Amino acid sequence: MSVFDESLKLHEKNKGKIEVISKVKVENMEDLSLAYSPGVAEPCKRIAENKENVYKYTSKGNMIAVVTDGSAVLGLGNIGPEAALPVMEGKAILFKEFAGVDAFPICLDTQDTEEIIRTVKLLAPGLGGINLEDISAPRCIEIESRLKKELDIPVFHDDQHGTAIVVTAGLINAYRFLGKNLKDARVVVNGAGAAGSSICKMIKELGVSDIIAVDKTGILNRDDIKDYNELHKELAEITNINNKKGTLSDALEGSDIFIGVSAGNILKKDMVKKMNKDAVIFAMANPVPEIMPEDALEAGAVIVGTGRSDYPNQINNVLAFPGLFKGALEAKSKKITEDMKIEAAKAIAYILNDDDLKKDYIIPDVFDKRVVESVAEAVKKVAVSSGICR
Amino acid sequence: MSVFDESLKLHEKNKGKIEVISKVKVENMEDLSLAYSPGVAEPCKRIAENKENVYKYTSKGNMIAVVTDGSAVLGLGNIGPEAALPVMEGKAILFKEFAGVDAFPICLDTQDTEEIIRTVKLLAPGLGGINLEDISAPRCIEIESRLKKELDIPVFHDDQHGTAIVVTAGLINAYRFLGKNLKDARVVVNGAGAAGSSICKMIKELGVSDIIAVDKTGILNRDDIKDYNELHKELAEITNINNKKGTLSDALEGSDIFIGVSAGNILKKDMVKKMNKDAVIFAMANPVPEIMPEDALEAGAVIVGTGRSDYPNQINNVLAFPGLFKGALEAKSKKITEDMKIEAAKAIAYILNDDDLKKDYIIPDVFDKRVVESVAEAVKKVAVSSGICR
Repeated sequence: MSVFDESLKLHEKNKGKIEVISKVKVENMEDLSLAYSPGVAEPCKRIAENKENVYKYTSKGNMIAVVTDGSAVLGLGNIGPEAALPVMEGKAILFKEFAGVDAFPICLDTQDTEEIIRTVKLLAPGLGGINLEDISAPRCIEIESRLKKELDIPVFHDDQHGTAIVVTAGLINAYRFLGKNLKDARVVVNGAGAAGSSICKMIKELGVSDIIAVDKTGILNRDDIKDYNELHKELAEITNINNKKGTLSDALEGSDIFIGVSAGNILKKDMVKKMNKDAVIFAMANPVPEIMPEDALEAGAVIVGTGRSDYPNQINNVLAFPGLFKGALEAKSKKITEDMKIEAAKAIAYILNDDDLKKDYIIPDVFDKRVVESVAEAVKKVAVSSGICR
Repeated sequence: MSVFDESLKLHEKNKGKIEVISKVKVENMEDLSLAYSPGVAEPCKRIAENKENVYKYTSKGNMIAVVTDGSAVLGLGNIGPEAALPVMEGKAILFKEFAGVDAFPICLDTQDTEEIIRTVKLLAPGLGGINLEDISAPRCIEIESRLKKELDIPVFHDDQHGTAIVVTAGLINAYRFLGKNLKDARVVVNGAGAAGSSICKMIKELGVSDIIAVDKTGILNRDDIKDYNELHKELAEITNINNKKGTLSDALEGSDIFIGVSAGNILKKDMVKKMNKDAVIFAMANPVPEIMPEDALEAGAVIVGTGRSDYPNQINNVLAFPGLFKGALEAKSKKITEDMKIEAAKAIAYILNDDDLKKDYIIPDVFDKRVVESVAEAVKKVAVSSGICR
């Protein structure tokens, strides 16, 4: 049976994947009087006196929402909120299974930016954080940045930053393995949507200066800026130091790193051959990568990563988001900052010692138990030292 | 330690009462590929093809939201959404513990009627039903009636109808015990808010014709209708066949049943004395009832019920809402109808045989395991025979 048929069976048999259970027992009148009326009036009163007590007496502090509008689900596109639910439930259980963070799926019946922002704000009193998921670009950028400004709980769009964190971790280790300085690398990012833009920003933050972003229309540059949406405008401003123009193939000429968050089979062998010695390729389109690893290696690449579990060097967000939220929630951080994301990337990378690193082992395994704790600790440390905790 | 101190300790120790867990295990790469990417694409696709498949492959069919705006929480009043959370979590665990229904608390940061309606509609794709809770009257009536019209999943305001169902069950059994016909009873309902109005409507539906509703201003009547809000107008139209005026004391003259959903210590012994022989009194104000049971009995009442667990005949909503939603969800009913509520009341009442009935045992115990199943079956039967199921 294929993974798809088996998954369908699993979903049907269990009627979905999540369950809301009680942490306390309710077996007799005494239990009832403590968990509910009349006893429950007391925690209510304490919170009414001081709103911050909601973290002390309720589940809020460990409860996040996984919010989508169903507009950009997996590789399936705009399939709507109902059809997005299996993915959101899946995400919710990953938070719980990997990090002990409670997460509830919220599938909104609107794709209006303002309405999504307003709704999430209205839901915030009971939530410790917001994980935005599978909302199409460029709306996802506006939604995240507004919610970050207008809420005092962590807000994180995983499709943007989760991917960026794990890619960054992979690049750090690829260059540790190669014994080269990542700052000197010439990087091509193919796919200038939510993930691509966040990757450009994060590696720039890390000190990489020569980054070229490529979209379907070609290299993003400052001469064509009038035709771009807001996202592409911003990217064209902060990347492409030499204001190069042309195709993906042109961009790859003399480059060191290819990062694909675009579509299957886009990267051809002859393009890889144009790259410098020690080429690093992260081809993360799913389920079919930009180039198959065997082809990339044959064309001269030295380190290849994909999103797939059946090849080495799997670049998987699950290395980042559980520990990131665990750390932010445990620190009672009011936000998730750029520093926290970069420290999370470093924490993932440095799980592996210099001696561990191999061409086909530059990123920890998804089930490496050390990752969550390490990421959470790194994030907590930044939160505390930045003075952004409750 | 008082129940309040103990409850506070319980809430602090457990950091709230709910947890979102996974129904499937995620321990290795294979588990991950079935519960999440790439396998999860298959249930997504099936739902995108046919929205109704969301009931087959997700948790929606057994998942409800417990929604409040924090405007009328317990007896505490308008304490806001954060302070309401302990109650909503409590309600959520009662759904799970009593009926196996998954429930998630939603505490909204708005008290605007239209905004509440809109928000609940936007959340509906992932939810199998909506339990409205602790929203102040008369807004709760408008919110419920609009959501019932505009959504195709069960919507239920427990403060109105949960109470009405259990009161009705109690009245049925009180009159079975007395060997009298409930339809002939003269009933006084004190407190004309959410619960009071629903009680009036339900017992009228059951055939009781002589009902008087009393509010702080006195007996609701058709001469003073110009001063009333919408709720009181409607009540004045459908109750008070003789268009009586006056105080609660006047209303009780020659009455058979007193139902209090008002405030503590409002019913005096001399008022009870004005009632007919075999007087039945349900004094449900919490924590202090309209009259203490010992006083009511001393003044001549024959059957007395309260909301308290430390007296006989506890009128507790938990007898109704878990089974009601369990039945509606299992039947995939698109709504909760008046018939379903009445059949739920009868199901609760007829758990007890004629021989079981005593003055101090006219309603099943809250932990009577038979209740949930019996209510759920009754509700399912109505749903199926009414042709309102998916």
